[in-house]
Amino acid sequence: LDRAMSATSINLAVIPGDGIGPEVIAEAVKVLEKAVAAEGVALELTNYKLGAQHWLETGETLPEEVLADLRTRDAILFGAVGAAPGDTRIPSGIIEREMLLKLRFSLDHFVNLRPSRLYGTVGSPLANPGTIDFIVVREGTEGPYVGNGGTLRGGTPHEVATEVSLNTAHGVERVVRDAFRRANERPRKHVTLVHKHNVLVFAGHLWKRTVEAVAQEFPEVTHDYLHIDAATIFMVTDPSRFDVIVTDNLFGDILTDLAAAVTGGIGLAASGNINMDRTAPSMFEPVHGSAPDIAGQQKADPTAAILSAVLLLDHLGYTTAARKIEAAVVADVESRTGEPRSTAAIGDAIAAAL
Amino acid sequence: LDRAMSATSINLAVIPGDGIGPEVIAEAVKVLEKAVAAEGVALELTNYKLGAQHWLETGETLPEEVLADLRTRDAILFGAVGAAPGDTRIPSGIIEREMLLKLRFSLDHFVNLRPSRLYGTVGSPLANPGTIDFIVVREGTEGPYVGNGGTLRGGTPHEVATEVSLNTAHGVERVVRDAFRRANERPRKHVTLVHKHNVLVFAGHLWKRTVEAVAQEFPEVTHDYLHIDAATIFMVTDPSRFDVIVTDNLFGDILTDLAAAVTGGIGLAASGNINMDRTAPSMFEPVHGSAPDIAGQQKADPTAAILSAVLLLDHLGYTTAARKIEAAVVADVESRTGEPRSTAAIGDAIAAAL
Ligand SMILES: CC(C)[C@H](C(=O)O)[C@@H](O)C(=O)O
Ligand SMILES: CC(C)[C@H](C(=O)O)[C@@H](O)C(=O)O
Repeated sequence: LDRAMSATSINLAVIPGDGIGPEVIAEAVKVLEKAVAAEGVALELTNYKLGAQHWLETGETLPEEVLADLRTRDAILFGAVGAAPGDTRIPSGIIEREMLLKLRFSLDHFVNLRPSRLYGTVGSPLANPGTIDFIVVREGTEGPYVGNGGTLRGGTPHEVATEVSLNTAHGVERVVRDAFRRANERPRKHVTLVHKHNVLVFAGHLWKRTVEAVAQEFPEVTHDYLHIDAATIFMVTDPSRFDVIVTDNLFGDILTDLAAAVTGGIGLAASGNINMDRTAPSMFEPVHGSAPDIAGQQKADPTAAILSAVLLLDHLGYTTAARKIEAAVVADVESRTGEPRSTAAIGDAIAAAL
Repeated sequence: LDRAMSATSINLAVIPGDGIGPEVIAEAVKVLEKAVAAEGVALELTNYKLGAQHWLETGETLPEEVLADLRTRDAILFGAVGAAPGDTRIPSGIIEREMLLKLRFSLDHFVNLRPSRLYGTVGSPLANPGTIDFIVVREGTEGPYVGNGGTLRGGTPHEVATEVSLNTAHGVERVVRDAFRRANERPRKHVTLVHKHNVLVFAGHLWKRTVEAVAQEFPEVTHDYLHIDAATIFMVTDPSRFDVIVTDNLFGDILTDLAAAVTGGIGLAASGNINMDRTAPSMFEPVHGSAPDIAGQQKADPTAAILSAVLLLDHLGYTTAARKIEAAVVADVESRTGEPRSTAAIGDAIAAAL
């Protein structure tokens, strides 16, 4: 953190990506630049052309040289990637796996941090949402996401397809400890492990045992356990109960989209793919996708991208700037009337309020 | 079906199980008995003591002789199983896997059918739920539920735990065809495949290819695809969009609990574990668990168990009796005021309305 606190510039990689990615990232950069300038810090931006469009033009997903170059940056701000649905020129999932997941895995982003908070007047689909303010600490480098599996006798009536979820003590322990650390700094100090250990016995018990062990290090933090199916029920009937959720890569993927919906939509949901050991740059991205249907029309909400920039500043230690942007976002969101504004208008309003 | 239609008795296995299981099953049997009696059909009941309590007393989960005996019945009505949370005498998950899942797998219950319908006045947690009326056809005999996995160097810092999802063309095709058949008989004739094929490539593509192939056999049925994370969003923002969802064992587990919550709670959610080839008896059970906290207090809602009996009658071909019970349940549910009634009072009211 010392380096960051005293640095006069942030060496930032920007991957705008596809669809609405460039539009929302432009606003995040606008707000970020203004917030750090007030602290006497400059943003040095390096843009990377990556994503579905880039693949169509070049056949490249994430070349090794680009990955090596990204490693030299302080952090990565990521928009969104993905082809238009029905664009059959792009083999399904190739950008997701060979670019987005490759970044998360190569840069060891083991903490996939996804805060969920319901702001005053913002429309939750729930009739009585109550106070919602929790974070999901999703494991980001193993589980069912490892790409380990295969197909036997593909395309025949005897086809067998497997998917292997890989879980290691190393991988589970570091993310569980991160969740307890974060809980320890929150007023409610509570961790909920979400898994399905009654069915996924081997992985589930590794997670359970690890939580029990790590909990010993945090005497002030309480913890409980929910099966993933029960967790989705509570997410719509009693989301206030959650403080810090820790879970695996796949359950975290599912639960955070649901959490985003419950707290007013993925237009607001931010995320950080964080390497807590700081052996490589972390990457911050809105939870939403590239939304090709509204791309280029200034219809996308840049708030999730701007809140991802807040997580980025927190990770780099610029907490004053982070809190300023956060306050400006909260004020903006709480004053929304439902009247549509352009992507840039929202970014401008938040930047002006800094 | 011929045999069932002309039969003068139903040879029914009853597994009340633990917690609230016996209470809700008593009401389901009461209603079932009265409905089929009106058609001149008798219920021959055989009770099976199985579950967590039985395991504590005997150490038995599901002995082979019991399984063989169950095979001789026309169908199985199942309550709920599970120990009280925190009862450390029972190794976690043992009843679920060695009894409940063993029944589903041994009796080849490949269609795990879970209808979701929002009845008039029943409280959904959604502010604007709209009209909800869909079914989930969850695969019941493979996927991540096969129990295939292991632990290496357990309990050490070098532990590795795996879970293998097994998917076969045979297993996927039969459940996908079942979903299309059911969609073909519904007004909207629409199937949504839910998976995560951008990450779980091998299994996901088997599912996608199978849906494309089977769709050719049903020219009137339309279909689309959603990733599991997106599906959970739509489940709370636009559940009306769903007609028939087909998905794998784990995604189906998650999605149906969420669907139950959205349509007024698991007190109403019924399910059938169906062997559509009729090579073994099918099993019908409420989606809810054994709820040990309210067991024996006549506080449980027997509606989910009674609606499970409706699915049972439909499966055996007693459609007149099924429709009668269903109508009585709908009338009862729509007239609920929130005033608490005992488990038996709800059963009595529905039986009286037949
Ligand atoms: C695009 C996809 C691979 C990704 C994931 O599954 O992690 C996305 O859904 C997310 O949550 O960031
Ligand atoms: C008890 C458990 C094994 C079961 C499952 O996961 O299938 C339950 O959650 C269900 O949905 O019927």
